[in-house]
Order: sequence, then structure tokens, then C-alpha cells
Amino acid sequence: MVTYRAVRMGFGNVGRAVATLFLQRGTAVERDHGVAVRFVLVADRSGAAVDPAGLDLQRLLDVKARTGGVAAYPGGGRPGLSGAAAIASVAADLLLEVSPTSVRTGEPGLAHLRAALNRAMHVVTANKGPLVGAYRDLMRLAHERGVELRYAGTVAAPTPALDLARYALHGAVVESIEAVPNATTNYILTLMEAGYALEDGIRAAQDVGIAETDPALDVEGWDSAAKIIILANTVMGGDLRLDDVDVEGIGAVTTAQLTQARRQGRALKLLASVRRGPRGLHAAVAPTPLPVEHPLARLRNTAMGVLFHTDLLGDLLVSVEGDAPLGTAQAMLRDVVQIGREHRALS
Amino acid sequence: MVTYRAVRMGFGNVGRAVATLFLQRGTAVERDHGVAVRFVLVADRSGAAVDPAGLDLQRLLDVKARTGGVAAYPGGGRPGLSGAAAIASVAADLLLEVSPTSVRTGEPGLAHLRAALNRAMHVVTANKGPLVGAYRDLMRLAHERGVELRYAGTVAAPTPALDLARYALHGAVVESIEAVPNATTNYILTLMEAGYALEDGIRAAQDVGIAETDPALDVEGWDSAAKIIILANTVMGGDLRLDDVDVEGIGAVTTAQLTQARRQGRALKLLASVRRGPRGLHAAVAPTPLPVEHPLARLRNTAMGVLFHTDLLGDLLVSVEGDAPLGTAQAMLRDVVQIGREHRALS
Repeated sequence: MVTYRAVRMGFGNVGRAVATLFLQRGTAVERDHGVAVRFVLVADRSGAAVDPAGLDLQRLLDVKARTGGVAAYPGGGRPGLSGAAAIASVAADLLLEVSPTSVRTGEPGLAHLRAALNRAMHVVTANKGPLVGAYRDLMRLAHERGVELRYAGTVAAPTPALDLARYALHGAVVESIEAVPNATTNYILTLMEAGYALEDGIRAAQDVGIAETDPALDVEGWDSAAKIIILANTVMGGDLRLDDVDVEGIGAVTTAQLTQARRQGRALKLLASVRRGPRGLHAAVAPTPLPVEHPLARLRNTAMGVLFHTDLLGDLLVSVEGDAPLGTAQAMLRDVVQIGREHRALS
Repeated sequence: MVTYRAVRMGFGNVGRAVATLFLQRGTAVERDHGVAVRFVLVADRSGAAVDPAGLDLQRLLDVKARTGGVAAYPGGGRPGLSGAAAIASVAADLLLEVSPTSVRTGEPGLAHLRAALNRAMHVVTANKGPLVGAYRDLMRLAHERGVELRYAGTVAAPTPALDLARYALHGAVVESIEAVPNATTNYILTLMEAGYALEDGIRAAQDVGIAETDPALDVEGWDSAAKIIILANTVMGGDLRLDDVDVEGIGAVTTAQLTQARRQGRALKLLASVRRGPRGLHAAVAPTPLPVEHPLARLRNTAMGVLFHTDLLGDLLVSVEGDAPLGTAQAMLRDVVQIGREHRALS
């Protein structure tokens, strides 16, 4: 049995889902996979909750729901304790990083990752920003410290898109990748295909909790760009950053275009792609009419998929549809289990 | 670096593909993943080729092509040495099992697996028979000896269908599985959809090397049955055997049925499925008209796919289309790499 003492930075939607998942399945995972997690510090904007013996996750969820912050945790509240200082304040061997983080600057997640890796803690993150801005640096730092940096939750989380690189593609070469990795825009495009105008589609997506209050990151294509970068860097050995991707969102897509595409037997998707070119990897995000027989064309609503064009294994598709509210949390859990099985606890 | 001394039983299509793959990619895999394989014994019907320092795979392929058997390997040929005796004749820590083996009796593969596991050798097999007949026994034996038994090559090999259970589904419950796991029947049905009669479809599939000379195993559904059993036992904790599956092949399917299904917006597929029922797992194989929006409906020609209905992760699809002639060999290679990364060489 490996038991990790974990710090979690962030207690928003994903943070709550992580807590819920460990409450529901933590015992089964311990039994089935021999990996246990004891949360010794959880931080949010209010400060931190600390207990070296392990926080009570249900109590933490209750406190958060009641007071809006974890700093009111009975007996272990530390108002104002945050960031790298919080990480340095406890003995721990694992960081789960889910704090609200900018895709462009990577902060504050990036600072958290560096602080944890420098302390030789394993890191599991659901934040794309740090990976988009500093992928090679972070991987090098993790390697130097002999720890793992995992991030299955960053790309089409319920699918094993990123796990493939580590566990299934050995010896094969990925020549290109095509993906529909952003559920929000795919949902909006599905509504537009049914006649909605863009703004109405966005509003409807917000009403059902699929789109953020500020939908720009999704609608303008930056979320998809971040995901194709992470795929390219992980699976194709790239070193791409956000500036390296040609990005066009769905802001200029019209209902008429969608209707016309459909009439021509095509489905308009916000496609993220990367291929090997004469000057290295070339990545792009753009609304693209896909022929109906294309493996990604049938993904509707909040479905997501990633298609790997390989030399030895044909065209491999992984996709997800239907409800997976704990998908990102489960991706982080599987990262933790994989690390636990491959390493012993460091202390 | 982990270096395995490997015995390979079988040198048919898959055996040749394994040799070709290791010749082409072995060095890259050593460099990227730190796992190397030295083949110390390779056996086929003619006997064995033996070299404790490692056989020359290119020479082995040449001898096989020239003489039809490995026993003519210069300096290391052992005519007549076969089966468990061959496995016991050398010091080795890994068995790659690809000998022609009955899906019904599991032999001779089953004897090879038992011999190797009893010698505390890791086993990687592409044979379904032993797993269909003795899954729990074999897993128990492997566990007792502290070694791994892996078989990614047995089900929809180019896809990570079986890897999912080990590396991606932690904490999630698979409620049911639907699969189109047999490329041969899918190819025949695609031809029948275009108007071919069953026998003409079978002949065409044989002409392009997709169907065996004796196509019964595929056409009657037994190959699909074996695959859904392996999926159910691996991913859903089952203990199913061949007799537990309701099997109907495509022998009674008519061109008219396919045309009619298509007219109704459906695609007729040989569907293998398993679900949890009141009395445990219930598995079946049957020609099934799928609505066009079903994730498996679009798989045509030799495409294959497996759809996992889960509680936490929605409906997960993995599928493959296009050429993957080394797919099974690569699945065995990834099994070896995974074992190598998780264990040290035993000696």
C-alpha cells in the first residue's frame, strides 16, 4: 500500500469533484490498486485547511458550502495561507493542482507546480496554463527531482487520450492528430445546426452550466489550442506554445454556414489539429467542415474525441459522450494511482 | 535498462510480425522506454532455434522463409524441440506466446502458458483460447509466482481496449460493454451491404487475406465471443467461459436484411456485448441493427471498436480503422514495455 500525503490547491468545481470522488471511491481504489491519499492541506482563496493526520473531506465540503472558503475548517483553518507558502508549510509528497489559472500566463498554477516539484513532490494537475507555457521546463524539473508530473485531466479528461502516449503507443509513430476537444463549442455548434444564432447558443450553453460566464476562452478557440499543444508536446515530442498555433474560434461561424455544411453532407466542427511539417510540428484550430464519414463528425452536444493517425496502428480514435461530471476528477485520480503503482511514496 | 531473455512459441503471421517489429523498432523502444528483449529461443512446428546470447531476428526470418521452419537456424537449430520441453530448455524470464491455438481447447497455448508461469516467467500472449478457458486459474498462477500475464493483442489489438482497465478506469464502474471486435465479419457485412451474397463476401475477404481458409470461427461468431469474454473478465471482473455466451454468427444474415436495415437508417453489425444482470454478467454475440447515431454504427470494412458504458466517465469509445498490419505485434510489444517498467528483470 502506498499512502500519499497530498496538498490540494483550489476548491472550485474540479476541487469539489475531487473531494466527492475520493469520498465515494477512495476506499475501493485503496483496495483494488493499493494507493491511498490523505489530504493534509487544501487551499482556496480564503486560505487553507490543514491537518497532518488527514482532513475530513466531508467536513471540508460542508465548510466550503456553508462559508464559501476552507479557512473556516474547524481546528485547522489558516486564513490567508496560500500559494507556495502553503505548499511549503506541510510535509507532503503529492500536489493536486486545480486552482483557477490563466491559460495565457499559467499563473498561479505554474508557481504552485514549481514549488511542489522543487520540494520533490509528485504533481497532478488539471490546469492547462502551466503546461502550455512551460512544458519542457516543468518536465525537466520533475525529471531532475525524480518525481512525476501528470495531467490526464487537461485534455478530453474522461478519455484516455493522454494515457495512450504513456501506456499504448510504444514503438508507433503518431504522424498527426485531429481533435474535437472542447465540449462547450461543440455544444454551441450543435445548437446552431438546429437553427440557433451564435449568441443564443452561447446563452443556452451558459444556462445549462456548460459555458463559463466569460465564454471567450472556449468560443475564441484558446481552450482547444491549449489542448492540441498538450497533445502535441506529450504524444509527438513537441515543444509548442500558445503563440505557435494558428487559432480561429467559432465567433464568425453563422447558422447559414452550418446549414449549408449539413446540406453538403458535412458537419462543421471546431477542429484542433497538429501534423509534422517540413519545419516541425504545425498546429491549428479552426472551424472545419468534416465529411460525415470522418470519425469526429458524429460527435455532437458535449461529446469530445481525439483521433491519432499512426504508422503502425492505423487511425486510433478515443471519444466520450454522455454525462461524466466527475471526469476530470477521475483523470486526476488515475494519475495518482499510476504514480503510486510506479513509485513508492517518497517518505 | 531492463533486458528480458524471451522465448517465443509460434512463428506464423503474428510471430513474423513480432520479429519484424522488434527489428524495426526495438532500438527506439530501448532508448525511449528502457526495455530490451533478447530472443533466446523461438519455436515453431519444425522445432526450435536457440541462442542464449540472443537470436539474430533477420536471420531467423530468412531461415523461416527459405526452409519453412526455424529448426534450420544455423548453429542453433534444434529439430523437434517443442512445447513445454522447449520452454524448460533455456534460462528465460519472458514468454511471447503466438502458437496456433484452438479457441475452444486453448491448446497448445495453455500448456505453454502454464509451463512459463510455473517457471516464474512473465507471459505475453496473443492467443484467446487459454484466456477463454482458464482466465482465473492463469491469473491466480501468475499472481502466485509474482509475474505478469498480459494479452493486449487478443482484443481489437491496435486499440487500447484492454489497457483501459489497467491504466484509465480506476474508480469507475463499467456497467456494460458493446463491441464490434471482429474485423473479418465487419468486412464481409460491409461487402454484403454493397450487394454481395454471404459466400461471395467470404471469398472476397479470403482473396485479400482478411478471412482465414476456414472462416467458421469468425463467421459463426466464436472469435467475437472469445473477445467479449476477455473484455468482461478483465474489465468487469467476470469469470465467463465460452459456454456462457449466447452466440449467433452472420451465417444466416442475408443481403436483403442489410439493405432493409440501411433503408431504416440502421447498420447491421455483428455486435458482441456484455452487461450486468440479476444473475451476474450476461454476454451475447448477435447480428444487430444499430441506429446510425450509435458510436459503433459507422465502423466499416476492417474497422473495430469497443464502447464502454461507465458510471463516472460517460460512454467511452476506442476504435481503429485503416491499416495496422503490425497491430497485434505492437500490442505484445507494449505489454512487454509495461511489464518492464513495472517490474525489474527476474534474474
